Amino acid sequence: MTMAKAWHLMQRPKGLPTHDDVALKEVALPELTDGMIHVRNRWLSVDPYMRARMDESESYFESFQLDRPMDGGAVGEVVASKADGFAPGDMVLHFAGWRDEAIIPAQGVHKLPELGVEPFHFLANLGLTGGTAYFGLMDVASAKEGDVVFVSAAAGAVGSAVVQLAKAKGMTVIGSAGGPEKCEFVRSLNADACVDYKAGPVLNSLKSALKEVGTKGIDVYFDNVGRDHLDAAFAVAKQEARFAECGMIDGYNHEDPYAYRYIMYIIGKRLRLKGFIFTDYQERMGEFYAAMAPLIQSGQVKSRETVMDGLDQAFDAFLGLFSGANTGKMLVRL
Amino acid sequence: MTMAKAWHLMQRPKGLPTHDDVALKEVALPELTDGMIHVRNRWLSVDPYMRARMDESESYFESFQLDRPMDGGAVGEVVASKADGFAPGDMVLHFAGWRDEAIIPAQGVHKLPELGVEPFHFLANLGLTGGTAYFGLMDVASAKEGDVVFVSAAAGAVGSAVVQLAKAKGMTVIGSAGGPEKCEFVRSLNADACVDYKAGPVLNSLKSALKEVGTKGIDVYFDNVGRDHLDAAFAVAKQEARFAECGMIDGYNHEDPYAYRYIMYIIGKRLRLKGFIFTDYQERMGEFYAAMAPLIQSGQVKSRETVMDGLDQAFDAFLGLFSGANTGKMLVRL
Repeated sequence: MTMAKAWHLMQRPKGLPTHDDVALKEVALPELTDGMIHVRNRWLSVDPYMRARMDESESYFESFQLDRPMDGGAVGEVVASKADGFAPGDMVLHFAGWRDEAIIPAQGVHKLPELGVEPFHFLANLGLTGGTAYFGLMDVASAKEGDVVFVSAAAGAVGSAVVQLAKAKGMTVIGSAGGPEKCEFVRSLNADACVDYKAGPVLNSLKSALKEVGTKGIDVYFDNVGRDHLDAAFAVAKQEARFAECGMIDGYNHEDPYAYRYIMYIIGKRLRLKGFIFTDYQERMGEFYAAMAPLIQSGQVKSRETVMDGLDQAFDAFLGLFSGANTGKMLVRL
Repeated sequence: MTMAKAWHLMQRPKGLPTHDDVALKEVALPELTDGMIHVRNRWLSVDPYMRARMDESESYFESFQLDRPMDGGAVGEVVASKADGFAPGDMVLHFAGWRDEAIIPAQGVHKLPELGVEPFHFLANLGLTGGTAYFGLMDVASAKEGDVVFVSAAAGAVGSAVVQLAKAKGMTVIGSAGGPEKCEFVRSLNADACVDYKAGPVLNSLKSALKEVGTKGIDVYFDNVGRDHLDAAFAVAKQEARFAECGMIDGYNHEDPYAYRYIMYIIGKRLRLKGFIFTDYQERMGEFYAAMAPLIQSGQVKSRETVMDGLDQAFDAFLGLFSGANTGKMLVRL
């Protein structure tokens, strides 16, 4: 019997997860039967939305089960196959992350298309990260050339893709990030201004940023954070501004709900807020690859990763998302 | 010189307005010159949005000026005219409310069309009230037959129009109102259930109402209230539910911002929130009259008014909006 190692959720976290909530345990792999492939993971994705899956949820993400392996996006190499169209050596995108090896049904596994880019991009700007940025900005927020775009967590994976996409499409971009170094990084992506949310109240800094770029308000808010960022966006939104609600990472780990001071502006400013999830757009991946791959190849959308090595590090990599340890996409290399 | 009486805003209210904030004062009317008409008001509209105009606003509604007459919707009779197309005896819809008489430019004044209904309807279901209900429900919230619709302040002017419209269009409707009598009224409008928000937490009552009508969640929320109602709507929204953000009357008079516990559901449930204002739809009034007038004539959309008599009572009528003194549209008859 082949054994693998997999991260298990052992109890549901209260607020910020800790090592007590998880365990890296051995699991027995099933038989390699017809239609299955054996994959050795090379890259694991850790993403903020996984925090929501650790809760008992009534809604969209399937909750992780207790004392069972967690899952998530991963890129791996096929080491054995009993499925048509898959052979040893193939690189594949699949959802059996948080572990080193897996035997899984070939259905739902994607062989990486040949786009002339490194495999890890399919966990980043050609995957959930870039896809979330692309569809959130262009579809959900209906962003267009000339718009003033505010994007929170702009040094993060999705945020940095949004900044670069928006600049490539001729928009004015204000990012937010925690601390001068991250803001430096955001500006290096050609953002027109950066709000350092650790330097003072977000709304004050955002107003200064608007002055700096010579405009009075925002047309688009790409929300990765919620709470004080979202409230500040209500405050400075222009008439008919559109909010792409991608994440509220700040909310995942706060037990106390946030008191919104400017939410009433939704009415008078005719704001539109829309929540979305990348997987809603699976059937439009062709459009996305066609738009994104050239921007990656031309360098207009650069990838930046924070890489941690080894399956042992996966949980710390995940925790790092909430302490701001990552710049760009957080990845685990096996 | 002809004198009139007009309500003036004397200071900006903190929270709930009081009589100290306003005064009923004499004003001199201007000369009746070319292009002007002299109107004697018969009906005045008082509406929750006027509270927002009492604040110093950066946004949409023009603020009332201090120590100046306030304005608002009114129906009056022309008593003298120097404008083409207007003659003494004409009934007109105009915006010089909060007073008994006015001399105003004929431009922007609407002669009431002959739809076989009483003049006050043009301040109610054929005016701002019904129009807000119609465009909010059908356009902003994209409501359709079979949808489950939750509407707050359902015994109020806009709310009761929403209830009846939605029922006429084949939707399931849950209203909310304060106290058993108002809920009785809401049910008399054919609402399938009514949440008495004074009887306990809105979310609990809403969940009971959903059980009562045999459904698990709402497709549409028509928001007149904000705060605990809005938060409860987040909690029970179905995937892809649409929120028409019409008003947050609860917010106008609370100094403390509300802490939203379920706002994160915007993301996972892919909710869409959109703020709107009736005046955005001026160019679609023809469509609205064509849809609404038959429903009024057939009795499918009934009008209910709370009428207070005399200009002296106008401010108390307005205050009544916030204490729940009205059932249906609050009007002042002169």
